[in-house]
Amino acid sequence: MVIGKVINRVVSTRKYDSLQGYKLLVIEPYDQPGKERFVAADMIGAGEGEYVLVSFGSAAQHGLTREAPIDAVIIGILDQEPEAR
Amino acid sequence: MVIGKVINRVVSTRKYDSLQGYKLLVIEPYDQPGKERFVAADMIGAGEGEYVLVSFGSAAQHGLTREAPIDAVIIGILDQEPEAR
Amino acid sequence: MVIGKVINRVVSTRKYDSLQGYKLLVIEPYDQPGKERFVAADMIGAGEGEYVLVSFGSAAQHGLTREAPIDAVIIGILDQEPEAR
Amino acid sequence: MVIGKVINRVVSTRKYDSLQGYKLLVIEPYDQPGKERFVAADMIGAGEGEYVLVSFGSAAQHGLTREAPIDAVIIGILDQEPEAR
Amino acid sequence: MVIGKVINRVVSTRKYDSLQGYKLLVIEPYDQPGKERFVAADMIGAGEGEYVLVSFGSAAQHGLTREAPIDAVIIGILDQEPEAR
Repeated sequence: MVIGKVINRVVSTRKYDSLQGYKLLVIEPYDQPGKERFVAADMIGAGEGEYVLVSFGSAAQHGLTREAPIDAVIIGILDQEPEAR
Repeated sequence: MVIGKVINRVVSTRKYDSLQGYKLLVIEPYDQPGKERFVAADMIGAGEGEYVLVSFGSAAQHGLTREAPIDAVIIGILDQEPEAR
Repeated sequence: MVIGKVINRVVSTRKYDSLQGYKLLVIEPYDQPGKERFVAADMIGAGEGEYVLVSFGSAAQHGLTREAPIDAVIIGILDQEPEAR
Repeated sequence: MVIGKVINRVVSTRKYDSLQGYKLLVIEPYDQPGKERFVAADMIGAGEGEYVLVSFGSAAQHGLTREAPIDAVIIGILDQEPEAR
Repeated sequence: MVIGKVINRVVSTRKYDSLQGYKLLVIEPYDQPGKERFVAADMIGAGEGEYVLVSFGSAAQHGLTREAPIDAVIIGILDQEPEAR
């Protein structure tokens, strides 16, 4: 998993029906903000600016309520901003 | 998932039969255009220059209509270009 | 797998119920400390500062006692700090 | 998937029996020739210097005729060299 | 798959029981020795300094004799050092 910061929401009208109901959020890697941002599904109510824990790959399916072509899911919201290095 | 921009179509005559009917598009990572481009299957009608959401790995199989050796699928088209950083 | 050093624990109150009981640790890649840190589940009692071996992806599920949206697991603790290059 | 250029063949006498009959080719990423080369199985007759489309991970199994510890497969040969950026 | 050079063995007394009997080796990517080293299981007798072919992810399970939380396996030993670029 990686820790990231929620940036904003992805708005996509034309998409797979199986994505309906999943909130998709743009995430910035916490540790290396210059690294590529990615998108994860959120089902636990993460908000912009919060630090979250994201799981990738086939493990992400265990965090969905039904099968969907989603490869990253927010599995936890950190209680506070992680310590800087 | 990652957000990318559709560049153009891959033209390949000699390929697996199981790829017939899948449109394969070259995608440039939105966030870091200098990073390596990749190829994703498109079944929702993405066009050149559009910004799309791509899912990778085993999750991509959930976006196909039949099993195929495809590891990346366009799952949504963004309503507008993402905000710059 | 990769070798990493345990930094500290992730504290997350709002998370998936399926994560209850799993200790989640921030890991720094041993070989390249400047590279992105990641988070792995620990079930073998790794402590801060120890060097551990981490397995990723679907293989990580084989290291869990029940299915969970976890994509990285500590599978061993090194007897001593690895040799420097 | 990624586009790569076939460099040469891997010669390995001591290997898993399940690899017998699979031609294994060293591939250079097309887009970023300085990036790490990788190895993919070829079952469609790709030759040195040709540009190919490679699929990775569990998807690669769908391109094999039997289960094998192979994580990358050439799934198509491009009709021509891709456009430079 | 990637080609790497065997550096040495990982010594870990505290580890998953399911890892017993698997020799775990530190591997340096052949092509880019400065890139992060990784660890792979070896069941075909690779020795230090040899060049090996490593398969990752779910494919690695096909190279194990029983399920284990192992995400990388040495599947072949190269007959000779690969050509320099």
